[in-house]
Amino acid sequence: MSETHSEVVALARALIQRPSVTPEDAGCQAMINARLSALGFNVEEHFFVDTLNTWARKGSEGPHFCFAGHTDVVPVGNERDWRYPPFSGEIHDGMLHGRGAADMKGSLAAMVVATERFIARFPNHKGSISFLITSDEEGPFINGTTKVVDLLEARDEKIDMCLVGEPSSRDSLGDVVKNGRRGSLTGHLTIKGIQGHVAYPHLARNPIHQSTPALTELSTTQWDQGNAFFPATSFQISNIHGGTGAGNVIPGSLDVQFNFRFSTEVTAEQLKVRVCEILDKHGLDYDLHWTLNGLPFLTEPGPLLNVTLDAIKTVTGIDANPETTGGTSDGRFIAQTGCKVIELGPVNATIHQVNECVSTESLDQLAEIYELILEKLLT
Amino acid sequence: MSETHSEVVALARALIQRPSVTPEDAGCQAMINARLSALGFNVEEHFFVDTLNTWARKGSEGPHFCFAGHTDVVPVGNERDWRYPPFSGEIHDGMLHGRGAADMKGSLAAMVVATERFIARFPNHKGSISFLITSDEEGPFINGTTKVVDLLEARDEKIDMCLVGEPSSRDSLGDVVKNGRRGSLTGHLTIKGIQGHVAYPHLARNPIHQSTPALTELSTTQWDQGNAFFPATSFQISNIHGGTGAGNVIPGSLDVQFNFRFSTEVTAEQLKVRVCEILDKHGLDYDLHWTLNGLPFLTEPGPLLNVTLDAIKTVTGIDANPETTGGTSDGRFIAQTGCKVIELGPVNATIHQVNECVSTESLDQLAEIYELILEKLLT
Repeated sequence: MSETHSEVVALARALIQRPSVTPEDAGCQAMINARLSALGFNVEEHFFVDTLNTWARKGSEGPHFCFAGHTDVVPVGNERDWRYPPFSGEIHDGMLHGRGAADMKGSLAAMVVATERFIARFPNHKGSISFLITSDEEGPFINGTTKVVDLLEARDEKIDMCLVGEPSSRDSLGDVVKNGRRGSLTGHLTIKGIQGHVAYPHLARNPIHQSTPALTELSTTQWDQGNAFFPATSFQISNIHGGTGAGNVIPGSLDVQFNFRFSTEVTAEQLKVRVCEILDKHGLDYDLHWTLNGLPFLTEPGPLLNVTLDAIKTVTGIDANPETTGGTSDGRFIAQTGCKVIELGPVNATIHQVNECVSTESLDQLAEIYELILEKLLT
Repeated sequence: MSETHSEVVALARALIQRPSVTPEDAGCQAMINARLSALGFNVEEHFFVDTLNTWARKGSEGPHFCFAGHTDVVPVGNERDWRYPPFSGEIHDGMLHGRGAADMKGSLAAMVVATERFIARFPNHKGSISFLITSDEEGPFINGTTKVVDLLEARDEKIDMCLVGEPSSRDSLGDVVKNGRRGSLTGHLTIKGIQGHVAYPHLARNPIHQSTPALTELSTTQWDQGNAFFPATSFQISNIHGGTGAGNVIPGSLDVQFNFRFSTEVTAEQLKVRVCEILDKHGLDYDLHWTLNGLPFLTEPGPLLNVTLDAIKTVTGIDANPETTGGTSDGRFIAQTGCKVIELGPVNATIHQVNECVSTESLDQLAEIYELILEKLLT
């Protein structure tokens, strides 16, 4: 381990060696912020309840470009299942191993080094550069990015373009850029029947029997066709529970939890109305509560996305594919301010798994891409 | 409480005052058996594991008529909810109160007194009379009637006709006689899908979505039309459980428990085949286990049923209605030996509830009916 590593890999290793399981930061932001301060960034640290957040900005002019990310990592599970200790940052056969290597300490390291190199080359660049870093992206996302966004909105500080370092790549670095995310809407449905004895079904009303035609219709409905940027809205039942446990009792109610991942072709309100129409059509007696986990956002082709695709092509030779699939990320909170948001980071094949790792070469390339994006946008 | 009560009511009270919650007998059978012994019955007491059973017979010739019943009662629940203490046997406004008053210590008392009176009047009656009494009818019915039936079968002792004292009456004594019971068949179904993230449904297979069309078909299928004695076979889902609890996970499997109450128009094997055909038609990957809780039985119009209807008419003026609805009873075990079985007992409106009670007049009438049945069959 005495070999020399690139600046990017060295910083990524140093971050991995700080065991910052959500909501812990474990000193990661201090390490990053010292380097940003040295570059002339104005660094603010905001601690909310259990979460450390950094808002660091250099410059006050537009255009305002922001790197966003998180220092926290998901738990390691059983440490003995790991080939190398998860907080060691060992490098073998060109791969940097450890929890957070891909999600997303590698990206943070690439952002910092890219910014250092860019400022060294273009000390008088136009616009401003900022970093929005949290230690609560993998947790309940209550005291992290959303709180910092609120703070910026309160003081009318606008971000124009944001690059989130989430590991977007599928097979090799840069093959996928996320230029949006679907919305997420959860329904908590209770269908009410009348409890009774299975031997006397005429005295009961079985909520399971009553519900299955409606559930079939919900699960086979085409909610929209998606569009050029979004796949069609999907509906999935995640939980269904009915019954007293006894084999001779018709239950009095049935609980169903379902989730929409929805495109920009439909609104959460429209989905709610259509679900109720289907339930009403089937004559169900029900209670229904909703949780809106996130609104969809989309960054249509324009300077930010075009520059990013160009930079990927220049560094890797790959024609990247913009996608809006997958889970939610903190990008949704930043996008709600009207900011353009894209996500670009390493290959995500091992994230949230044992033996998380990332190719050291890809981290060096990622820093080159990030630097080129800064150059194309701010010079 | 110093007033004089009829012999039937006095015995019913004495039985109620013994708190014989399943599988306890609490001395009830000893009280009955002493009186049967005095009548010349050969009394056998068979204790299996936790259950006391009596097999008492007078005579060895045919026709062999059996009174069947149970001394055990269901728990009282919260004793403070009872108007009168549940094991006191208090009588108010012509009603005998207490746990077991209707189900079925009143019937046992009527059987004993009816038999005493019949033998007093017809000491040289033809055939034989027996009593099959258990303390495990309300429990798991493992060590009760079914074990005694096995014992009788092993020694080739046949019952020709059996009257079970279950509270069959709906609104007034004798309005309903059970001349059969539906079968009960339970299915334990696990439908297998592929677990996954709700954001990536194309990588998963949701067993809830896959199952609802099949469950709809199962719950709307007409399994048979019933017949002159049985209502149509009914299907009810009693329990359904799927989901990890997490809102973003498509579960890997769905558990469904369902129950058939089936007529003599269809066999358990036919129902099993038809269920599998429906599941297969919908392309489901499943495990399915069956529990046959009881076969259906039917006592078609003939001497036993006709004599019972006549006796009811004579004593109460009511034209009784033979039915096969409702839950299971120990009659199913006795019927499997080829014996004709009917059930006749008090009004069942309060059974298994707080404030269980029965009209004292109806118990006296029940003893008259039972005595008349003995007279019509054995003289």
